[in-house]
Amino acid sequence: MSTPDAGPQCAAPVAGLSLRRLLVDTYQEPIAFLRSDCPVCKSEGFESRSRIEIWRGDQHIVATLNVVHGEWIGTCELGLSEAAWRALGGNDGEPLRVAHAQPVASMSAVRAKIYGRPIGSDAAKAIVRDVVDGRYSEIELASLITACSGDRMDVAETIALTRAMVGVGQRLHWNSDMVVDKHCVGGLPGNRTTLLVVPIVAACGLIIPKTSSRAITSPAGTADTMETLAPVALDLPTMRRVVEREGGCIAWGGAVSLSPADDVLIRVERPLGLDSDGLMVASVLSKKVAAGSTHVVIDVPVGRTAKVRSQQAAHSLAHRLDAVGKALGINVSVIMSDGTQPVGRGVGPALEAWDVLAVLQNQANAPADLRQRALLLAGRVLEMGGKAAPGEGLALACGALDSGAAWAKMQAICEAQGGMRTPPRAAYAHVITALHQGRLVAIDNRRLARLAKLAGAPKSPVAGLELHAPLGTSLSAGQPLLTLHAESPGELAYALAYAEAEDDIFSIQEA
Amino acid sequence: MSTPDAGPQCAAPVAGLSLRRLLVDTYQEPIAFLRSDCPVCKSEGFESRSRIEIWRGDQHIVATLNVVHGEWIGTCELGLSEAAWRALGGNDGEPLRVAHAQPVASMSAVRAKIYGRPIGSDAAKAIVRDVVDGRYSEIELASLITACSGDRMDVAETIALTRAMVGVGQRLHWNSDMVVDKHCVGGLPGNRTTLLVVPIVAACGLIIPKTSSRAITSPAGTADTMETLAPVALDLPTMRRVVEREGGCIAWGGAVSLSPADDVLIRVERPLGLDSDGLMVASVLSKKVAAGSTHVVIDVPVGRTAKVRSQQAAHSLAHRLDAVGKALGINVSVIMSDGTQPVGRGVGPALEAWDVLAVLQNQANAPADLRQRALLLAGRVLEMGGKAAPGEGLALACGALDSGAAWAKMQAICEAQGGMRTPPRAAYAHVITALHQGRLVAIDNRRLARLAKLAGAPKSPVAGLELHAPLGTSLSAGQPLLTLHAESPGELAYALAYAEAEDDIFSIQEA
Repeated sequence: MSTPDAGPQCAAPVAGLSLRRLLVDTYQEPIAFLRSDCPVCKSEGFESRSRIEIWRGDQHIVATLNVVHGEWIGTCELGLSEAAWRALGGNDGEPLRVAHAQPVASMSAVRAKIYGRPIGSDAAKAIVRDVVDGRYSEIELASLITACSGDRMDVAETIALTRAMVGVGQRLHWNSDMVVDKHCVGGLPGNRTTLLVVPIVAACGLIIPKTSSRAITSPAGTADTMETLAPVALDLPTMRRVVEREGGCIAWGGAVSLSPADDVLIRVERPLGLDSDGLMVASVLSKKVAAGSTHVVIDVPVGRTAKVRSQQAAHSLAHRLDAVGKALGINVSVIMSDGTQPVGRGVGPALEAWDVLAVLQNQANAPADLRQRALLLAGRVLEMGGKAAPGEGLALACGALDSGAAWAKMQAICEAQGGMRTPPRAAYAHVITALHQGRLVAIDNRRLARLAKLAGAPKSPVAGLELHAPLGTSLSAGQPLLTLHAESPGELAYALAYAEAEDDIFSIQEA
Repeated sequence: MSTPDAGPQCAAPVAGLSLRRLLVDTYQEPIAFLRSDCPVCKSEGFESRSRIEIWRGDQHIVATLNVVHGEWIGTCELGLSEAAWRALGGNDGEPLRVAHAQPVASMSAVRAKIYGRPIGSDAAKAIVRDVVDGRYSEIELASLITACSGDRMDVAETIALTRAMVGVGQRLHWNSDMVVDKHCVGGLPGNRTTLLVVPIVAACGLIIPKTSSRAITSPAGTADTMETLAPVALDLPTMRRVVEREGGCIAWGGAVSLSPADDVLIRVERPLGLDSDGLMVASVLSKKVAAGSTHVVIDVPVGRTAKVRSQQAAHSLAHRLDAVGKALGINVSVIMSDGTQPVGRGVGPALEAWDVLAVLQNQANAPADLRQRALLLAGRVLEMGGKAAPGEGLALACGALDSGAAWAKMQAICEAQGGMRTPPRAAYAHVITALHQGRLVAIDNRRLARLAKLAGAPKSPVAGLELHAPLGTSLSAGQPLLTLHAESPGELAYALAYAEAEDDIFSIQEA
């Protein structure tokens, strides 16, 4: 029971404004600033929070207006936030035209969804098109995401959304019938297997054009971690060159625009802390289809404090992944893994990269759990890709790692992506110790992730934490549990305050 | 499956910044601006969209941060948007302290709701408290509202939310066991009966301390219309004085803070165009309870393009109103009325006020439908309030209107509220005519409302439209259907473009 917003077909834009880049970072939300005493503001009846369309020649964007009553911008200047300026381009003083933006027609489908009507194929296309065109305001994006979260999207809607998301982005084609990929649905700090699976699989001769996301609600995404080793913001021609030369790559998906709608949705999912099955499957599979993958292994860690909390939830997710994969024409194989504790020692972009390097270089102290998980996944990929008979993938993967072939391949991939680099180290660190003796019986992954984020991860690549005691460790009082790493003393203090307040991140059972 | 955000208990705020009022209107969202090269920004690890807490002495607010890379504010200035400055106060140059804001603890209840868990009484209290304290960002508000929209809130949740909303605001008490009120759930353009019912009922000796809202998704709220006749932003002592002197008032609810949480929710409901049963009932009844009402008549217009579209939806809403009323201890009586066409001739604040004046003054050309609806409602209120026996309320109301007693009472109320005034007239108008002859068989209320909003209503009080032909009229080609009114040529052109594109606002059946 809402006002349907079918908008006017036309409203001629008004000229007379000049561009002013205000160098104000509103994150990814395009914001425009206009003086209240500007004639255009008055004649058009603009007010704060009006959605306006701005033209620079043929380029145009939709932005949210802030009305300025002060004199720090000129009467006829239209100030642009960085997100608005990036989308529109141009130099200070260039002429701009403006008009009321047309209401977002597809929001009526979102409202219908809120009132219980499923999102059909046409509605999904219209929504995704408007999202990619920047027509949704932040609160409209938040409403869309909330309406599609929880158990509110069925398989048919997920298929419609995934197809629509593939439809608006670029799509890669490779000279091979067999293009593999792997993905982890996340929720397990430190689970950085991609950086091992890709070089192992590529070293065995499969094509694996991997794109990864930056963190959504976690302290590090695969792209964040890879970026401490090599550039990840590859454009499509570069990504193609890397894969053609080395068989694999680890690129940031946002830069190649394989699923541009997803990149917009993520910017609101992240602060809301929402990451639901339907949106997750659409996000993952739209990118795999767009990347030209034919066979995908998906790692679903299950644990009380992982993203997927029960076997039941894992099966429901696996079913959805399989059904949507079939509808979109790709083979999906799901591996449910142990999600009870973090993987490896580091949590945070650079700290996780150090773990990866230890495994690739077969160092004696390399985290065994990370190595084992990566080998299992790589084995399954090699079997799916026809490089190993069923049951023999693990041994093949093992050989590629132990022989140094995977490490050589990783170095080659990093060089091809723009040059390998050494992960940075933090300027500030603080050790947190056990308050009393006992056995470490549980670790709260969510609070641990939150702690790493408060220390500054993933924005600050050096930030995060290093775990010193896996589950089952017998601890003495005062024995180190973890080391916090931060780039600034403020962030370190902030994370410490949290660690002190939340004294049940680690459950230590006294003997 | 999200990250629960139990926050740190403490993080000492950092000093060293000085206040700068930027005079930028971000509507009601508090925004702060800080230079990227400011030492505090760096040491605290602030980034764009960080939620920060700002202290000025003991006063503190939560705001969203925009990071400035330009030099239009000083290195150690903390720029405040108008909403932030209104909440925090202070003068340019005053010292401020800042820290990362604690994550909003009650958002975990919102996420749980999204995943299907009902909002209990404690969760409702926590959510409403955080909303009133300004801890929810705009996208968090949008997520909360979306999660509670559609059929997603049951009666128990609505009761919990209503109680919580009453709990955080002021509450009025009157020296009477009988305090009446009326309310219309809206959706019918021009249905401005409150401005008639209040003077009729007060003239008959009942106490009716009416607070009204401004428009949510409509071209005019009752408070917007009343404001063209008298001040409506009364504080509580003034409102009490008016009611004690005249028996009734028509005040803007937002100014008296009777349900401050609702005032915050509305600012996001409005641009989203969401206005669902659960939130609507909580909004309406929390205000009635806070205003000290004991008996309330609620008008529910039903029509295909009204807010309530079917008898079934009306009964469900009536049931919820009744159940929540009982739980909160007030008597609710629902009247379902005809919602097929607009009421009166004017749509928009001032144009609706002119209709009201015509009825009060018993002018020959007064809109008969508006008069009749107001009399029916006033009659029911008089019966509920014990001033008339069942079935005799209508006649009593009629007498009060015909005798001029209601008109005299309205003038007295307006004087008591701060002085009666004449509604303004628009500078720009344009007549829209029938394209062909025939009978007017349907009017699309929603598109009509949209048209009035595009013309500038309710922000511009003179804007809106005047209808010239009620349902059933036999029209000739070229006969006037409506006149558009606007304050600026831009808004007039914008509304005209919509009217031309949407040529089915009026359905005219050729003979």
